[in-house]
Amino acid sequence: MAHNTFGNRLTLTTFGESHGEAIGGILDGCPAGLVLDFKAVQQELNRRKPGQSKLVTQRQEPDEVQFLSGIFEGKTTGTSIGFMIKNANQKSKDYEHLKDVYRPSHADFTYDKKYGHRDYRGGGRSSARETANWVVAGAIAKQIIKDITINAFTSTVGNITIDKPYQALDFTKTESNAVRCPDTTTAEKMIQLISDVKKEGDTIGGKITCVVQNVPIGLGEPIFNKLQAQLAKAMFSINAVKGFEYGTGFCAAAMKGSEHNDLFNADGTTKSNLSGGIQGGISNGMDIYFRVGFKPVATIMQDQESIDKDGNIVTLKGKGRHDACVVPRAVPIVEAMTALVLADFWLMR
Amino acid sequence: MAHNTFGNRLTLTTFGESHGEAIGGILDGCPAGLVLDFKAVQQELNRRKPGQSKLVTQRQEPDEVQFLSGIFEGKTTGTSIGFMIKNANQKSKDYEHLKDVYRPSHADFTYDKKYGHRDYRGGGRSSARETANWVVAGAIAKQIIKDITINAFTSTVGNITIDKPYQALDFTKTESNAVRCPDTTTAEKMIQLISDVKKEGDTIGGKITCVVQNVPIGLGEPIFNKLQAQLAKAMFSINAVKGFEYGTGFCAAAMKGSEHNDLFNADGTTKSNLSGGIQGGISNGMDIYFRVGFKPVATIMQDQESIDKDGNIVTLKGKGRHDACVVPRAVPIVEAMTALVLADFWLMR
Amino acid sequence: MAHNTFGNRLTLTTFGESHGEAIGGILDGCPAGLVLDFKAVQQELNRRKPGQSKLVTQRQEPDEVQFLSGIFEGKTTGTSIGFMIKNANQKSKDYEHLKDVYRPSHADFTYDKKYGHRDYRGGGRSSARETANWVVAGAIAKQIIKDITINAFTSTVGNITIDKPYQALDFTKTESNAVRCPDTTTAEKMIQLISDVKKEGDTIGGKITCVVQNVPIGLGEPIFNKLQAQLAKAMFSINAVKGFEYGTGFCAAAMKGSEHNDLFNADGTTKSNLSGGIQGGISNGMDIYFRVGFKPVATIMQDQESIDKDGNIVTLKGKGRHDACVVPRAVPIVEAMTALVLADFWLMR
Amino acid sequence: MAHNTFGNRLTLTTFGESHGEAIGGILDGCPAGLVLDFKAVQQELNRRKPGQSKLVTQRQEPDEVQFLSGIFEGKTTGTSIGFMIKNANQKSKDYEHLKDVYRPSHADFTYDKKYGHRDYRGGGRSSARETANWVVAGAIAKQIIKDITINAFTSTVGNITIDKPYQALDFTKTESNAVRCPDTTTAEKMIQLISDVKKEGDTIGGKITCVVQNVPIGLGEPIFNKLQAQLAKAMFSINAVKGFEYGTGFCAAAMKGSEHNDLFNADGTTKSNLSGGIQGGISNGMDIYFRVGFKPVATIMQDQESIDKDGNIVTLKGKGRHDACVVPRAVPIVEAMTALVLADFWLMR
Repeated sequence: MAHNTFGNRLTLTTFGESHGEAIGGILDGCPAGLVLDFKAVQQELNRRKPGQSKLVTQRQEPDEVQFLSGIFEGKTTGTSIGFMIKNANQKSKDYEHLKDVYRPSHADFTYDKKYGHRDYRGGGRSSARETANWVVAGAIAKQIIKDITINAFTSTVGNITIDKPYQALDFTKTESNAVRCPDTTTAEKMIQLISDVKKEGDTIGGKITCVVQNVPIGLGEPIFNKLQAQLAKAMFSINAVKGFEYGTGFCAAAMKGSEHNDLFNADGTTKSNLSGGIQGGISNGMDIYFRVGFKPVATIMQDQESIDKDGNIVTLKGKGRHDACVVPRAVPIVEAMTALVLADFWLMR
Repeated sequence: MAHNTFGNRLTLTTFGESHGEAIGGILDGCPAGLVLDFKAVQQELNRRKPGQSKLVTQRQEPDEVQFLSGIFEGKTTGTSIGFMIKNANQKSKDYEHLKDVYRPSHADFTYDKKYGHRDYRGGGRSSARETANWVVAGAIAKQIIKDITINAFTSTVGNITIDKPYQALDFTKTESNAVRCPDTTTAEKMIQLISDVKKEGDTIGGKITCVVQNVPIGLGEPIFNKLQAQLAKAMFSINAVKGFEYGTGFCAAAMKGSEHNDLFNADGTTKSNLSGGIQGGISNGMDIYFRVGFKPVATIMQDQESIDKDGNIVTLKGKGRHDACVVPRAVPIVEAMTALVLADFWLMR
Repeated sequence: MAHNTFGNRLTLTTFGESHGEAIGGILDGCPAGLVLDFKAVQQELNRRKPGQSKLVTQRQEPDEVQFLSGIFEGKTTGTSIGFMIKNANQKSKDYEHLKDVYRPSHADFTYDKKYGHRDYRGGGRSSARETANWVVAGAIAKQIIKDITINAFTSTVGNITIDKPYQALDFTKTESNAVRCPDTTTAEKMIQLISDVKKEGDTIGGKITCVVQNVPIGLGEPIFNKLQAQLAKAMFSINAVKGFEYGTGFCAAAMKGSEHNDLFNADGTTKSNLSGGIQGGISNGMDIYFRVGFKPVATIMQDQESIDKDGNIVTLKGKGRHDACVVPRAVPIVEAMTALVLADFWLMR
Repeated sequence: MAHNTFGNRLTLTTFGESHGEAIGGILDGCPAGLVLDFKAVQQELNRRKPGQSKLVTQRQEPDEVQFLSGIFEGKTTGTSIGFMIKNANQKSKDYEHLKDVYRPSHADFTYDKKYGHRDYRGGGRSSARETANWVVAGAIAKQIIKDITINAFTSTVGNITIDKPYQALDFTKTESNAVRCPDTTTAEKMIQLISDVKKEGDTIGGKITCVVQNVPIGLGEPIFNKLQAQLAKAMFSINAVKGFEYGTGFCAAAMKGSEHNDLFNADGTTKSNLSGGIQGGISNGMDIYFRVGFKPVATIMQDQESIDKDGNIVTLKGKGRHDACVVPRAVPIVEAMTALVLADFWLMR
């Protein structure tokens, strides 16, 4: 019942507020003897980092992870891995005007009502800054399950959507543009849309598709640790996520069994893969693919009416440094959480 | 890491195969002194029971729950509540032809590969019969959180969808028809569609909407036990579920922040509720509403090609007793899992 | 946080009151493909059963375990194993006089204060009847770790103690006498003592020694799941246990490091084994041995002063069926809990 | 199954090696709004600190705790509390001669066999340095349960023992001497004994008694989270602990029920308290008292025969900085773990 802990056998426990001293975590259950590729970890963190393009928040954080334990002579020792990322570019003063004000569709109101006391600077614990911790842990998880490949990408921004199946995409192009969309033509449209929205001081939602390949048969634990259930839980832990579907997802609602069933080949693979690689909560060796829907960022650069602690109506000025669309930066976060889930199940076998 | 256990403070641990002696469970963490309404529990179980209408499987199970512990003189004692439902109408012979065969889009293949050995009768542990246990526990959970109301209903079958917001529906009508759709005109169309599909020996998917009202502010535990994350996990534990979204869900992807933000009233309620009653993983007191997407039942009454254990191609005859659409019977299951999640968080406060 | 669940990877969740319908449990995490020796399970249960000799309670329970799931064609399937033991010989009326009375050094008072409502018949949930569930699960655990041998025995009753090291004992004689003491001369003295105490309507305490042999190196999980810590927790779950020590135990307090250190042989075994087979929370391959101290049974056949719910002083008559010394019947319970702990760690490796 | 996590509702997750960069932890579940007394936390840490007297290791660590999150404006926010203690005085070179050598009765051998790779400097993760983390968390726990008082003290060193009941002791004197024994005459003898042992280059074991007063009725959760079971688990997590007993402990083995039963007063308190404040796993409001037995420190300043990784016999020179008796420094550790257990149960009510 540790609410700041994720996972069963490979567990990540985290701490940290947006504008506190540091954020960090403890990864427990990592097998001993893993030669850690530290550069790969930092690289994932860089992918998530703010300030990478004009589209995203200009908060400049070096976001360098420091490992404090669990690694000796470059190899994991099987003991818990402590790590920390210092908060370098906190402009706490930017948030003083929010001290007593609840921003619409943010967690200010609920944190205040639940805890009676909150770190209001930049959302405190509810800030997506926390996800930097996940990316560190996820980068290690990726190294535990080296043979499994995880490719997430921006598939939708607003009404702009890749109109190709994932099999037609070249994942090596995902990092080639600011929105992390492997279809470069669509990427350009997305970039344009985000720029337009940003000029209006507004924000826009989107979707991420994630494809997991080379998954061994047998990952996932019925009845209450089904692979899809744990993936869903992981995705809904990410800020701003409103929907999760795998395989055919919600489209399955309109389909017939005779259309939807995946017939077997003699070797146990299936001719189609509408199921999305999972049956009865257990991976069947086919590709796992899913989509995650994100709402538009709640902080907008427009005036909004809101209330303060005492119920007074106030006008909230659009201020601070925020993304006009959170989706591109969420791509490595989706991958990290996916890696944590898969590594966890992989270690359980 | 007990994979057959759900919940944190209120935990349900279950056992049972479709065609074994009995199924059952242990509900741990129920507060002492609750005067149990046993009739209400049985009623929920009856709602899930097969054989209720022509639309669903004709397997006749009395499905009577026996409580074995944790209750004394009609009141809970605070100790673990053991319960059992005997399997009465097992026609195991119906399944002997499936002993060595993997049914398409069922869990036969993955269970066999994972465990090397499985109870093939009626899907064994992977059967939705298990959900009867959840309904028992959920019915108790509902009594723990008496003030909160949970109303699930069939909102979509195939391409038939209720085209009204939930606020315009009369939930007292949900039980008035065989598909559990509170909009009777739509219900009739759904019934017709399922009948047609059934005649073809086929099955059809659908969606359930669930509305939770009168939720206190403060339920849900950041960072990794967010209310929406635990609801998602609960829903993806249900057989055949392919998608979950709450509030605006996937539609949020196409929206702007200025449209999506829920502005506050002076009393802390919000003018709109696109967020679906949760901010930062914590309930804000507004209605929680979500949709769950179901694939069509994999067992169809048509011949299908499949494989056996040795990789031989075999023809699978459509046999057995199955639902043409699982959605109406899943309505009480969705409610039960929702109740378990909410009661769990309610007890954590 | 399921308080009726023991274990991490192999988990036992239990239910049941002394005089309820039945007691039972769910064993989750048992590997698939184990050919269960049901007779061996029942045999362990028979060892714990009341009414085996004149020394113990004459409550006659058939204590037959019924397995309800998780086993198919004699083999475990990897799904949760549900089991049940019916309560056959409840004489609830024997307990009506205790309805409002708190027995000294029993759990009546604390249960009543904690839960406000309790099943007073035979101690309800606090009864040692619960341990029958543990013996069932432990008997399965023993079959998971077949190569490890676990031998518990009565080493002390009152002031009668085996004065030999365990290495000088023949464990095959443990079951040859009513007190489960492998040293038959000492056994006779113990039997005499218990008989004498019983005649006085009194009860007596004792100790159990448990020796675990053929343990692989590497069981136990630092920092907070150390092998000795989990063993201690297991033993203190047993009713009437007041002390636990392993290796030299409390005697170590009077020793010097130069005496206490176990020097290595070239093969990694140690010349002495004062440590008791565990270093840093991890088994080192040497014998694990520990002692468990039990208080005398609180129910005595003498008049005692006590209080009722309202604080009135009452005289409690000695009535009911109880053991004059609980230790002999606790031997299989100590073994069962030890087996659960070791199997749990064995499966974690 | 996070092995570096302790507790259920209030959980401590830790990391850190003796000679790594830092040690630290995350305390999750601390209620919001607690005004933290930072000085009291540091004071507890100072009590555990090496170098306090001539009797203990001269390793000089500032041991200053840094809080990184979960506290805002001096008050806890209800989010996870991250903290860190830098390792300042690591003399890693002192340990290079131990790189391939297994010290007798240390965890070197078992860690190496389990993980295949270990941080050999100062015992790495198995070092008692870890307990500094527990003291930090325990100091916060003490502030959560302010009304409960926890007094641990050295009751035995070698064959020197306080021969008075705890009721006859003045706990305010515990800190008045180097061995933390509230009986000053006995303390002097203990100091003399430790000095003598130290001169011989040897070490000596001992016992700590802990008394918990003003405990509310109802703490502890049957069946598998009994108060005594969790206390036992906590104590056996501490390095060098070989025994735990509460109330009469092992002495109960020689007692009769008629002697051992605690008769009630009209108000529900008991005339005697041989039970040690717990019945059926639940506190009954009387004092909880227990004893913890410690083995002598394994590192001695004498030559010892040992083996290296390859099974060669080597001579181990006594080197490094170590305590001749660990018991005085373990007093605040016992208190810290006790506080964590009690606060955990207190928050569960």
